[in-house]
Amino acid sequence: MTVVMHDLAGANAALRFSPYCWRIRMALAHKGLAVETIPWRFTEKAVLAFSGQGRVPVIRDGDTVVSDSWSIAEYLEDAYPDRPSLFGGPTGRAHARFINGWADAVMMGGIARLIVRDLLDVVDPKDRAYFRESREARFGMSLEAVQEGRDTRVADFRATLLPVRLVLSRQAWLGGDAPSYADHIIFGSLQWPRCASRFELLAADDPIAIWRERMLDLFDGLARRAPTA
Amino acid sequence: MTVVMHDLAGANAALRFSPYCWRIRMALAHKGLAVETIPWRFTEKAVLAFSGQGRVPVIRDGDTVVSDSWSIAEYLEDAYPDRPSLFGGPTGRAHARFINGWADAVMMGGIARLIVRDLLDVVDPKDRAYFRESREARFGMSLEAVQEGRDTRVADFRATLLPVRLVLSRQAWLGGDAPSYADHIIFGSLQWPRCASRFELLAADDPIAIWRERMLDLFDGLARRAPTA
Repeated sequence: MTVVMHDLAGANAALRFSPYCWRIRMALAHKGLAVETIPWRFTEKAVLAFSGQGRVPVIRDGDTVVSDSWSIAEYLEDAYPDRPSLFGGPTGRAHARFINGWADAVMMGGIARLIVRDLLDVVDPKDRAYFRESREARFGMSLEAVQEGRDTRVADFRATLLPVRLVLSRQAWLGGDAPSYADHIIFGSLQWPRCASRFELLAADDPIAIWRERMLDLFDGLARRAPTA
Repeated sequence: MTVVMHDLAGANAALRFSPYCWRIRMALAHKGLAVETIPWRFTEKAVLAFSGQGRVPVIRDGDTVVSDSWSIAEYLEDAYPDRPSLFGGPTGRAHARFINGWADAVMMGGIARLIVRDLLDVVDPKDRAYFRESREARFGMSLEAVQEGRDTRVADFRATLLPVRLVLSRQAWLGGDAPSYADHIIFGSLQWPRCASRFELLAADDPIAIWRERMLDLFDGLARRAPTA
C-alpha cells in the first residue's frame, strides 16, 4: 500500500522544502514505505480539512489520517513494528521526543531568522501575501529586517548546534550505529534551508555538515536528488 | 559489592553538590547498587591520580576504575545489564548522549551564571582561592560580576529549558513511563543549585519543578534527604 502525503511545495511544484515534511519523507523511506506526495500550498487550508487541522505533513495510510510530524512518526513506528525501527524501543522514543522538542524550540527559529526572506522567493505566487503577512506578524518586523546581518549572525546559530556536534563527534549517527528518527528530525530541519535557500548554514568542516552528506546518501540519495532553489 | 565514589564535598563534608556526581548517585540507586562516597575537594587532585585525571565523579567497582559521568553511566549499564536499564537499549543510549550534550552545553553554563558566587560560600576553605581564580579566569570577570542581575536574568535561563518543559508536559519522565538516565542528567544538573544555593531557578508551577519533586521522591527520597546550603 502506498502512503499519501500532503507536502509543502513552492512555485516550482517539484521544490519541497518543509522541514516537518522532510522528517516524514525520511521516516517513510526508513520504514521502506512507498509514498505518493501531493503538492500543497500554505493557502490551501481547505484541502486539509479532512485532517481536522491546516498544516502539513498530513498522511493518509489506507483509512488512517495522521497529521503533525511527531504523531506521524509514532504512528509509523506502531503500525509497522516489523520494519526497521525509528526509535529502538520506548526509551529511545521518549528520548527522541526531547530531540524533537529541542529542534522545534531552538533550531527552527534559528534557521528561520537566517532564511525567511529567501523563502518568499520560492513559495507559490498565491502564497506570497499570506507568507509575508503571517511571518512578519510572528517576528514583529519585515522579512528583510529579520534576515538582515545573517553573514555575521550565522556564527551564533552554529554555536546553538553544539549538542548535535558533541554527539556526532562521538558516534556516526544521532541514533548510534544506525540512523534513527533523531537523525531525520535534525536532517529534515537542515534540508529546509538547503532546498529553499542558497545561504549555507554550516561550515564545510563541521561534523554536522559531514554527517549531512551521509544523510543525503541514504535511501538511494532520496534527499540529495530533491530539487533545490 | 559496594561501589566507592569520590564525591565533591563542601566545607560541610555532608554537603554534596556536584551536578555530575548527582547524575551518578541517581544512576547507582537506579541500578540498586550500594555506594560508599568519599568526600573530595577541588584541590585534592592528587587523590584522584589513580584514575588518570583530576575530576569527580570517579568510581571504583572492585578492580575497575571509571571517571567521567557519561562513561560511568555507560559502564554501569554494561556491567549490570540485568538490573533496571538506564538507557533502554542502544538507540535510547545514543539519544541520551544528545541530552547529555545539551545539558553540558546549555544548562551547566546557564546555572553557573546564576549561582557561581554562592558556590564560593559552600566550598571547603582550602578550595576557595582555587575556586575563585579558576572560575574567574573561565568567565573573564569576578564571581560577583558573573552572578549580578540574576533576578532578572533567570527568566532567560528558564526559557532555555523549553525542550525539557515540552517533554514533561507530554510524559511523566524524560525516559517516558519510567525514569531513565536522561532524568538523572537533568535532575543532577538541577540538584547542583538546589544543594549549593538558596536561589530558586524554577517557577513553582513549572512542569520541570513539579517533575523535580517526583525525582526527589525516588529511591526513598535519596536526593531530598541530602543536606542543602
